[in-house]
Amino acid sequence: MTPMNRQVRLAARPTGLPKPEDWEHTTEPVPDPGEGEVLVRMELLSLDPAMRGWMNEGRSYVPPVQLGEVMRAEGIGRVVRSNHPNVAEGQPVRAVSGVQEYVTASGDRVEPVDESVAPLTSQLGAIGTAGLTAYFGLLDVGAAKEDDTVVVSGAAGAVGSVAGQIARIKGCRVVGIAGGEEKCRWLTDDLGFDVAVDYRAGALQGALRDATPDRIDVFFDNVGGEILEAGLGRLGRGARVVICGAISQYNAEGGIEDVHGPRNYLSLLVNRARMEGFVVFDFRRRYAEAARELAGWLHSGALVAREHVVDGTVDDFPDVLLKLFRGENTGKLLLRLAAS
Amino acid sequence: MTPMNRQVRLAARPTGLPKPEDWEHTTEPVPDPGEGEVLVRMELLSLDPAMRGWMNEGRSYVPPVQLGEVMRAEGIGRVVRSNHPNVAEGQPVRAVSGVQEYVTASGDRVEPVDESVAPLTSQLGAIGTAGLTAYFGLLDVGAAKEDDTVVVSGAAGAVGSVAGQIARIKGCRVVGIAGGEEKCRWLTDDLGFDVAVDYRAGALQGALRDATPDRIDVFFDNVGGEILEAGLGRLGRGARVVICGAISQYNAEGGIEDVHGPRNYLSLLVNRARMEGFVVFDFRRRYAEAARELAGWLHSGALVAREHVVDGTVDDFPDVLLKLFRGENTGKLLLRLAAS
Repeated sequence: MTPMNRQVRLAARPTGLPKPEDWEHTTEPVPDPGEGEVLVRMELLSLDPAMRGWMNEGRSYVPPVQLGEVMRAEGIGRVVRSNHPNVAEGQPVRAVSGVQEYVTASGDRVEPVDESVAPLTSQLGAIGTAGLTAYFGLLDVGAAKEDDTVVVSGAAGAVGSVAGQIARIKGCRVVGIAGGEEKCRWLTDDLGFDVAVDYRAGALQGALRDATPDRIDVFFDNVGGEILEAGLGRLGRGARVVICGAISQYNAEGGIEDVHGPRNYLSLLVNRARMEGFVVFDFRRRYAEAARELAGWLHSGALVAREHVVDGTVDDFPDVLLKLFRGENTGKLLLRLAAS
Repeated sequence: MTPMNRQVRLAARPTGLPKPEDWEHTTEPVPDPGEGEVLVRMELLSLDPAMRGWMNEGRSYVPPVQLGEVMRAEGIGRVVRSNHPNVAEGQPVRAVSGVQEYVTASGDRVEPVDESVAPLTSQLGAIGTAGLTAYFGLLDVGAAKEDDTVVVSGAAGAVGSVAGQIARIKGCRVVGIAGGEEKCRWLTDDLGFDVAVDYRAGALQGALRDATPDRIDVFFDNVGGEILEAGLGRLGRGARVVICGAISQYNAEGGIEDVHGPRNYLSLLVNRARMEGFVVFDFRRRYAEAARELAGWLHSGALVAREHVVDGTVDDFPDVLLKLFRGENTGKLLLRLAAS
């Protein structure tokens, strides 16, 4: 009996927050893997703010997901059939599978994952792509060094929580910006941030000023909008603003016209500062080295990994994705697919 | 008979464009120079877009001009009395004199100028602070190199016109953005820009796209607002955006709240690009070296210097300053003080 593959496809380009009608749920037979291919049954799907950008038309760092195409997603699954000599059946692998239960791919395009290193959930989070993004963004793009004041926005998210912890490990003073008392408490009590600023409490500028008496050396921004402006307003001489994302702006109803551009960007001039964007893929050649260091910190207890795992099916993907934009996740948001 | 000194002082912090009532015109006796001091009669005053920023309250790269204080300005004058052993009477000197006819200053704080190098007007322009700003902004901050596509906004201004010419000298493809056909013709016909884009002609984005088939490696921005956005929209991989100024935004009626922040700043992420501000003073130790190189280009004819000289008195300063914000100057705007 051929198993059936449930999939979530992009049906329309959303305006603002993705709505149910922007998705199409399909079922098709699982194709047999060809020569050199493997068939993987997905167990965990990663949900990332960047996904919202992939749904838009236009030039970006990856091609847009096409209408009718299975939504792009990274995940970890298990090989159920292998026609590739180096990939065993039963082997857990990381793959850019898309939002579907099964994926058939070249055995060279899936990456074996070692379950003994850390739970698979963390391998999609703190020591996976999110952790690597934090690592290269903070240390390479942001050039954070000992005694720097590092401010991270979206600090309770998958990338921000790791960026702040790496900064702490490197001897920086670390300030996190997050939404809500609970997230803020987690940052200071469990992750060792020096200060957490709750942007929902209002008076962000004043709170950030109080939290950064020596101003900011590195602002690691995942949020954009008024939070980016608050950061720019506290830059110190020679500061680095790392543009990792802008979750507050991805769903602007009017698209780019409605994005809140940083009105105080001339702070870059006053402070001889730079604002720089990056894409983690560019650091691919150094992934292994960085992942080793992240895993070492995880094992020593220096790095706390937290995943927000939602159990469900691929059909739940559209709803779960919205949690990111409502600030409902703490740590890495994952969808764990029920065994069929 | 003690000569009298006519002065222009800041009377109020302007909202939007400076108005006549934001200035106070005063006359006081010229003080005698003390031990080690010189008395200088100013002949040329430099008018700079940055002056608008100096009139605002708040933290910047220099302290704000205080209310009641003589407006800050750089100029060239001639020593009329000297109590300093190394400064001869009759010597032309550069000084941050302020907007006044006479200044008394320590002989160590004025910089002798060699009239044989170039006309004094050019020494306040293409081979003065404006030229140095272009030089370090383009080559150090922007890291422009041969075959780069360099786009300069405010290209017919004092800094922009030199930045574009240096880019051409260094073997870059150079595109200038300026307002009006006449300025654009000057850029291509006299200064050797490859293309000039007239932002007043409308359809800026399309025109800039046509002018930059290989996208932009260095965007040297003097203007801000929609012109900065047009530049960000055409960045290439690894581009550098040099924030030199934002003349379109300095007079925003509502202050910072009304500044047009770049809505498409995420182009920095997509293109792994950086946007960096600078202040020319930080390069002070390399001024002599750069000024020599600029003077060499001027003498060889590689660099064309143009000054827009208005003859008048210090009382004309407030009116002449507005020319900058109305785009009425081509090249370096100077006020030449009539001999009294």
